[in-house]
Amino acid sequence: MTTRRKSFGSDNHSGAHAEVIQAIAAVNAGDAHPYGADEWTTRSADELNSVFNAAASFFVFNGTAANVLGISLMLRPYEAVVCAESSHLHVDECGAIERVLGNKLLVVPTPDGKLTPDLIGPRLTGRGDEHRAQPRVVAIAQATELGTCYSLQELADLGEYCRSQGLTLFLDGARLSNAAAHLGCDLADLAAHVDVLTFGGTKNGAIAAEAVVVMRDDRVQDVPFLRKQQMQLGSKMRFTAAQFGALLTDKLWLRSAQHANAMALRLAEGIASAPGVTIQYPVQSNAVFAALRSERIEALRREWAFYIWNETEGVVRWMTAFDTTSADVDAFVAAVHASA
Amino acid sequence: MTTRRKSFGSDNHSGAHAEVIQAIAAVNAGDAHPYGADEWTTRSADELNSVFNAAASFFVFNGTAANVLGISLMLRPYEAVVCAESSHLHVDECGAIERVLGNKLLVVPTPDGKLTPDLIGPRLTGRGDEHRAQPRVVAIAQATELGTCYSLQELADLGEYCRSQGLTLFLDGARLSNAAAHLGCDLADLAAHVDVLTFGGTKNGAIAAEAVVVMRDDRVQDVPFLRKQQMQLGSKMRFTAAQFGALLTDKLWLRSAQHANAMALRLAEGIASAPGVTIQYPVQSNAVFAALRSERIEALRREWAFYIWNETEGVVRWMTAFDTTSADVDAFVAAVHASA
Amino acid sequence: MTTRRKSFGSDNHSGAHAEVIQAIAAVNAGDAHPYGADEWTTRSADELNSVFNAAASFFVFNGTAANVLGISLMLRPYEAVVCAESSHLHVDECGAIERVLGNKLLVVPTPDGKLTPDLIGPRLTGRGDEHRAQPRVVAIAQATELGTCYSLQELADLGEYCRSQGLTLFLDGARLSNAAAHLGCDLADLAAHVDVLTFGGTKNGAIAAEAVVVMRDDRVQDVPFLRKQQMQLGSKMRFTAAQFGALLTDKLWLRSAQHANAMALRLAEGIASAPGVTIQYPVQSNAVFAALRSERIEALRREWAFYIWNETEGVVRWMTAFDTTSADVDAFVAAVHASA
Amino acid sequence: MTTRRKSFGSDNHSGAHAEVIQAIAAVNAGDAHPYGADEWTTRSADELNSVFNAAASFFVFNGTAANVLGISLMLRPYEAVVCAESSHLHVDECGAIERVLGNKLLVVPTPDGKLTPDLIGPRLTGRGDEHRAQPRVVAIAQATELGTCYSLQELADLGEYCRSQGLTLFLDGARLSNAAAHLGCDLADLAAHVDVLTFGGTKNGAIAAEAVVVMRDDRVQDVPFLRKQQMQLGSKMRFTAAQFGALLTDKLWLRSAQHANAMALRLAEGIASAPGVTIQYPVQSNAVFAALRSERIEALRREWAFYIWNETEGVVRWMTAFDTTSADVDAFVAAVHASA
Repeated sequence: MTTRRKSFGSDNHSGAHAEVIQAIAAVNAGDAHPYGADEWTTRSADELNSVFNAAASFFVFNGTAANVLGISLMLRPYEAVVCAESSHLHVDECGAIERVLGNKLLVVPTPDGKLTPDLIGPRLTGRGDEHRAQPRVVAIAQATELGTCYSLQELADLGEYCRSQGLTLFLDGARLSNAAAHLGCDLADLAAHVDVLTFGGTKNGAIAAEAVVVMRDDRVQDVPFLRKQQMQLGSKMRFTAAQFGALLTDKLWLRSAQHANAMALRLAEGIASAPGVTIQYPVQSNAVFAALRSERIEALRREWAFYIWNETEGVVRWMTAFDTTSADVDAFVAAVHASA
Repeated sequence: MTTRRKSFGSDNHSGAHAEVIQAIAAVNAGDAHPYGADEWTTRSADELNSVFNAAASFFVFNGTAANVLGISLMLRPYEAVVCAESSHLHVDECGAIERVLGNKLLVVPTPDGKLTPDLIGPRLTGRGDEHRAQPRVVAIAQATELGTCYSLQELADLGEYCRSQGLTLFLDGARLSNAAAHLGCDLADLAAHVDVLTFGGTKNGAIAAEAVVVMRDDRVQDVPFLRKQQMQLGSKMRFTAAQFGALLTDKLWLRSAQHANAMALRLAEGIASAPGVTIQYPVQSNAVFAALRSERIEALRREWAFYIWNETEGVVRWMTAFDTTSADVDAFVAAVHASA
Repeated sequence: MTTRRKSFGSDNHSGAHAEVIQAIAAVNAGDAHPYGADEWTTRSADELNSVFNAAASFFVFNGTAANVLGISLMLRPYEAVVCAESSHLHVDECGAIERVLGNKLLVVPTPDGKLTPDLIGPRLTGRGDEHRAQPRVVAIAQATELGTCYSLQELADLGEYCRSQGLTLFLDGARLSNAAAHLGCDLADLAAHVDVLTFGGTKNGAIAAEAVVVMRDDRVQDVPFLRKQQMQLGSKMRFTAAQFGALLTDKLWLRSAQHANAMALRLAEGIASAPGVTIQYPVQSNAVFAALRSERIEALRREWAFYIWNETEGVVRWMTAFDTTSADVDAFVAAVHASA
Repeated sequence: MTTRRKSFGSDNHSGAHAEVIQAIAAVNAGDAHPYGADEWTTRSADELNSVFNAAASFFVFNGTAANVLGISLMLRPYEAVVCAESSHLHVDECGAIERVLGNKLLVVPTPDGKLTPDLIGPRLTGRGDEHRAQPRVVAIAQATELGTCYSLQELADLGEYCRSQGLTLFLDGARLSNAAAHLGCDLADLAAHVDVLTFGGTKNGAIAAEAVVVMRDDRVQDVPFLRKQQMQLGSKMRFTAAQFGALLTDKLWLRSAQHANAMALRLAEGIASAPGVTIQYPVQSNAVFAALRSERIEALRREWAFYIWNETEGVVRWMTAFDTTSADVDAFVAAVHASA
């Protein structure tokens, strides 16, 4: 990767906020009870519980683990997860759900990464039939892997649908901050219709910190054991908690996400007039998906870092981060125009 | 936990080295390829490969995960792990091996936490019998959970025994630094007869960093996939690599372990003359196990933090760390004497 | 279920061949070594090896278990199975692959239940990428769950494709006899391009007997352990072997399948002229899928047993068996006509 | 195996009762609903429910599967099973519990294969500690693998202990008939303090038939799905049900077990006076464990089939079956005497 130019590859190409690093240094004082029994973990978890109106919050190391732990709270061995074909837990976790939990995914193609009752319905056949894995969890991402967001109404409708169908709703919030920034709502609004969700820190300026936020009291008691068994119990957890402490201070999480989203919009607007470049999905977080000719993709990739999302269809993903500058975006937009 | 007095509870009650925090801050500059494709990860892994004479090294978040990943490189589904009854992977990992890998543990009582060919032999019955899980991996810890160390000769004998029996040898090195400090040997000496081992950073002054060190070329190719599937692939891996970078610089790992071990010896020597206190195992790393009356235990625990190892037998564990001072030890020794 | 009329529900609604029952009785003489070390098991397995030109054959109790065992011979933990969306192992095994093996299924919609290189290709993205479960096994069924058969050329093409792509080919042969009868080929022809397959007895007149047929020497050694661990090692295996002995005697398997197929063709021909009844797939084994109005379906089901395959689209499955008679078919055809 | 002489190897060396074979033939008439929805399955399950006073009964193919299914009804992922070191599920199932369920076994050495509250107690440490797999199920066998039986009082005590400790009690009844015969009690008496048990048919004259008997209503609903997922749902289940039908008719199960037990006692009494032969455990079912010199063992094994239980200690197992005759026993006793 060239280090001369800002990467548009992913929000995890960035480093961390200075405040996150400072918070890590600040908790490095003397002894602390390990495994989360320290004051910083208590404080950060309490703050998360407060902003989400949650029953309990637990820290883990990465997003895949957060998804696996969160989903594991809601499944019996023969139950299945309905998720989008583009979902991280289906595509990008090397089969962790199947391996660690042993549960089946029922995968649904979607136009924009978002599930709807109409898309979920056909996957609910065979309920009560012992030959079929039984659908139990609907797993969505907010923002989705395609950069789109569910509206609050869509979330409410999904929640209502799930309740009416005896399903539980899980939300992968690796980029929940970006969704909150886009929708201009509270985190609690995003969690209101959900049973368990994750709240990502790493993609928003932490070094390695994700939270599993449990909205239902009756799902809390198993978490400590499952987290440990799933190899996600950090001994010096104060250092993870400190990262969330920094993100929660003066809503650094929100300011960072607002900035990243603004940069993505600036990018999208900048290329709107570029001939031969077609934006694929509504830009509702910090990602822009665009289609353009492969020669142009290749030319751009010689100078800029980003991923090809779909080689066959010539779709690329351009992603901004908390530390992407307007100048970075403008330079990249100019390069896109120049690639024509 | 009282913060007035140094904890003798565990080496993970300590914070991190200042050098570790500084190293984390130092790598926080600009973008980097994620998932370990950055220069710092390459450098730290290369250094580990060099000091261990290893085929490859991989970073994970914690010790349980390192054990599970390391052992997973050597097992078919119907194979089993022979380990000590006191081993971390049997006692302290909430059944992660059984859950994540699905393999059986064949547990061996030991006098001092150490396996020997004589102890392993009786667990090798039924080889070739389809009704029996087939022993394949012998898992040892160095230092052991009881603070003891295998001598280099004992390691060589175990390695030879395993090879002769068609077994592979795994070493849990969460406290490998302490063993190297005790034995006065190189890390490569400790790995010489082993197939896969772990090298712990967290208990020796990192915030959350462990390495899986693979000694055999033919076990390397699966690791990236298994690490990801086992939920241990960090996206911003430079921050994990940086911690090992700090530990490897001027052998900080060794100096820290030497100090912790010296403090444990000072403690052991200090209480040697205390009536009614019986040291349980040779003090060969940074832990002292002692038996004393429950009233004294209770009295001490009102002022000092440490764990009761075996309530029935009145055995406690006192553990030192890189940041335990002579004054800490002397004050605690005085308290032990005073508790009589 | 009415017992007055022959069921068209499934070939497992039938009982067993008289010869199968007689064979079970015939081996019930005195003692025998258990767990397959008896002469009848040896003989039946040898015969299967001979007719399939196989490395080894193993008996299990049912088709789900045969699929799971067969597939388990070819997968590392992070590898995946490409299969048709209509496949039994995806739809009808309650997630056994995911639960027992922990591997991911990569599901492909097909027009007729059959995979082709063109359909498989798009599921092979992300090879070598640690974030993706790695495709390794292509699993097909012969006959398929939709009653269709791969031609020998199609099998050869699939085998060649798999070899060229570093994939292995698994064949679910729960109804392999019907395919052989349809194609007029030897069983060995059907296995020629396959790595591991199953050969079903139950749906063709046994009471409970399936075989896992391993074509490659290097996949044999693990089978006994995996079969036991997967809970499919019968102690009095002579009674399972006897069922295959009966099926292999004078090619009872072939005669039975030829008859069942002929009955399905008779049924298809009988309804070809029925207005409002549309046959869905080529009738190439012992199943006829047809679409008709729901009122007619309901009317027919009041007197006859069969399954609704797709309620939304009004598709039903009519299945024949070794013991379906021409009179059964003719009566049912008349009922279909009369339902208009 | 010599077929000239009756095997004393195991009760699964025998064939099946003539009544069992006849029952299989008798249900082979016309069509039946598959997967247990037939009248014979209903009738046999109802009879089992009645004799056990059970909530529900389910048929599976073999004993390992019955144990795995039964135990799976009572465990969350991080919970563990306390069992005897000699238990079938620890020793003889190739790690099926760990593989299929992913749960840990906590193994207890016993003098005679029987667990007691005093033996279980020390395995209950660490409850509530997230680092420890949490003991939940106590698994016993009746009769045990060492041929011993729990008295009704011992069962009541275990049940009371489990309830008081928040544990559930599972009973492996592969040889439950032999225990009932020895104790002279009803099957319901043996199940009275148990949550889930198995009832074996195979070792008592069936060809392949085991039942999982669920005593608690709240554990029933998951069974159909778990049985299917665990690959134990037979399609033509009437043939399994028929075997239990035969065993239940005029208490064939009891008469068979009484006979087998009587033969074991005859054997034990016959060798009581043999010099150099030491019976190891009370003979309370159909097995006799004896120690004798290895030369005698070798000499006997040239003519007779039986297993060496513990080569180091020179212990052998001699097992009788429903079809062992007095003449068989007397000839074998004479051989033992002659081997001196």
